[in-house]
Amino acid sequence: MDHAWAIVLAGGSGTRFWPLSRRARPKQFLPLAGSSSLLARTLERMAPLIPPERVIVVTSAALLGASRAELPAVPAENFLGEPSARNTAAAVGWAAATVHRRDPDARLVVLAADQHITDPDGYLAVCGRALEACDAGTLVTVGITPTRPETGYGWLELGAERGRGVFEVARFVEKPDRARAEAFLAGGRHLWNGGQFFFRADAILDAIRQHLPVLGAALASDAQLADRWNALPSISIDHGVMERAAGVLTVPGAFGWSDVGSWTSAWELGDHDEFGNVSEGSDAVLVDCRGTYVHGRPGKTIAVIGLDDLVIVDTEDALLVMPRDRAQDVRAITAELERRGLGSRL
Amino acid sequence: MDHAWAIVLAGGSGTRFWPLSRRARPKQFLPLAGSSSLLARTLERMAPLIPPERVIVVTSAALLGASRAELPAVPAENFLGEPSARNTAAAVGWAAATVHRRDPDARLVVLAADQHITDPDGYLAVCGRALEACDAGTLVTVGITPTRPETGYGWLELGAERGRGVFEVARFVEKPDRARAEAFLAGGRHLWNGGQFFFRADAILDAIRQHLPVLGAALASDAQLADRWNALPSISIDHGVMERAAGVLTVPGAFGWSDVGSWTSAWELGDHDEFGNVSEGSDAVLVDCRGTYVHGRPGKTIAVIGLDDLVIVDTEDALLVMPRDRAQDVRAITAELERRGLGSRL
Repeated sequence: MDHAWAIVLAGGSGTRFWPLSRRARPKQFLPLAGSSSLLARTLERMAPLIPPERVIVVTSAALLGASRAELPAVPAENFLGEPSARNTAAAVGWAAATVHRRDPDARLVVLAADQHITDPDGYLAVCGRALEACDAGTLVTVGITPTRPETGYGWLELGAERGRGVFEVARFVEKPDRARAEAFLAGGRHLWNGGQFFFRADAILDAIRQHLPVLGAALASDAQLADRWNALPSISIDHGVMERAAGVLTVPGAFGWSDVGSWTSAWELGDHDEFGNVSEGSDAVLVDCRGTYVHGRPGKTIAVIGLDDLVIVDTEDALLVMPRDRAQDVRAITAELERRGLGSRL
Repeated sequence: MDHAWAIVLAGGSGTRFWPLSRRARPKQFLPLAGSSSLLARTLERMAPLIPPERVIVVTSAALLGASRAELPAVPAENFLGEPSARNTAAAVGWAAATVHRRDPDARLVVLAADQHITDPDGYLAVCGRALEACDAGTLVTVGITPTRPETGYGWLELGAERGRGVFEVARFVEKPDRARAEAFLAGGRHLWNGGQFFFRADAILDAIRQHLPVLGAALASDAQLADRWNALPSISIDHGVMERAAGVLTVPGAFGWSDVGSWTSAWELGDHDEFGNVSEGSDAVLVDCRGTYVHGRPGKTIAVIGLDDLVIVDTEDALLVMPRDRAQDVRAITAELERRGLGSRL
């Protein structure tokens, strides 16, 4: 699409996919629920709308080399390496300013580098609609049709319809408690705020200057931004701009979105055998197992007997075994490794 | 002890310790429930009675090199490599004939290479008594005080006492059913036949000539034995000689004997932490686990969360995960690997 640019937020770190994820190879680099990395698939999915020359990848300075290597079709100068993590408002601002200098008429698609979408055609249809909706200078967010009473996400409430499949956002809602989340799911007027935004570069830069003036001022030039980066307020584009701006629109969509939040998600999204087992990366031999997830690597045989609902992840120098419903406890392991001085395994 | 020789039967193969055991590295080479191999510990245990120069190791031709490497103190010519497996009567006969030519007055201790003993002093006391008891030409077997109604072993019934701690064997009993085994355990007159034998070399050679004349004739010279080896009957020294011979004596003993029959035994024999977990060979990180056995290797972190009574064995090219009580099902895995053409992992 003319003047459409993708801003890929690829600075994530995190330990929920240990031991496959490491400091130098966080989640977006992993081939979860697919054979290529989540990062590479993020670009492939957008390719019908946006060619690699119009993709900007914002990542940490430490991951710049790995990110370029993972996306060889994207020009090297399109990678922005943050000197420190300053949350998504700063990342989006930097990318928007960079694109705006090259293409004053640019429209931006902001998206995370580590998500999974099972219906890419449905997704592209939503993106196309959202790109049109933002053309007049409005900020647009995708609202994801909820499939469960999720308390870990922000939600948004649908307002009046403003066009075919385009609605006003009546209000954004912080992570709700279980009862509210269930009411939202039942009511049908609330959607997940999936953190995918569409706006013209000039529109988001105006909104940043209005709502985050310190960041807005720093964006005047790359030299100023570099000078002031480490002192920028650390705030998300959601909280800092989207929730404060007037007239935000949303395009609802159901396209099998997942933020691939843990090993449990990897099992959910994988190819299940007749017993509900998922085996990735290795020639696993599962005897009398149900609902078990195995992530291995070529040349290593993983054999499991008589175990249900387990997660088994094997790498060269670390192995993790746990029940699937303990996936949130991976942090207990990484904390213990730090304590034992085994941080080199992180 | 003068003229005392050890005959170590080290030809075992088997898959129960897969993936740590391999065809080229069966159980006797593994550091189970200890830091050196079962084979090396078998010799260390006997060392106060028998020096390495008087140890004969009978193994398969394929394992000759590995066996010599594992026992560098034993002279190379003391290793006998069987061209094919012909069970223990042939192995003991070959070793007895070999020793008898070097030392006509030799007394032999026949023992398996893959057992574990927790009380080596108690064991040596029993061995000393048994070596004395066999000096008059009698065949002597060690009777192990039973600790459970084991249906997998042969048992023997105690006869009259013939000296301090030395008894006649009233009869040998084939593997009993559960009810008989429980009666044996309760009655106190039955012992496990642990397959450790003591006899003079000339006495066992006489007994072989009497009860196994084909083998007896073949033992006349090494050249004849080599010629006839593959045609020898495959029979154990227990069935072929001990159970047929008259006047067999037994020395009962309780010295924490185990045949280390499966991964379950390895857990039983290991060093348990306060939660009953056993971790060998690696720096395992166990969070909220009980009764779990981990066998790893240096330089690899094994992390387990919230799992009880599991066996986890990790090697370079294969990993096994199973409940502790499924240890007998390892064969299902090795059979499946054969079926899939992954025999290189065996």
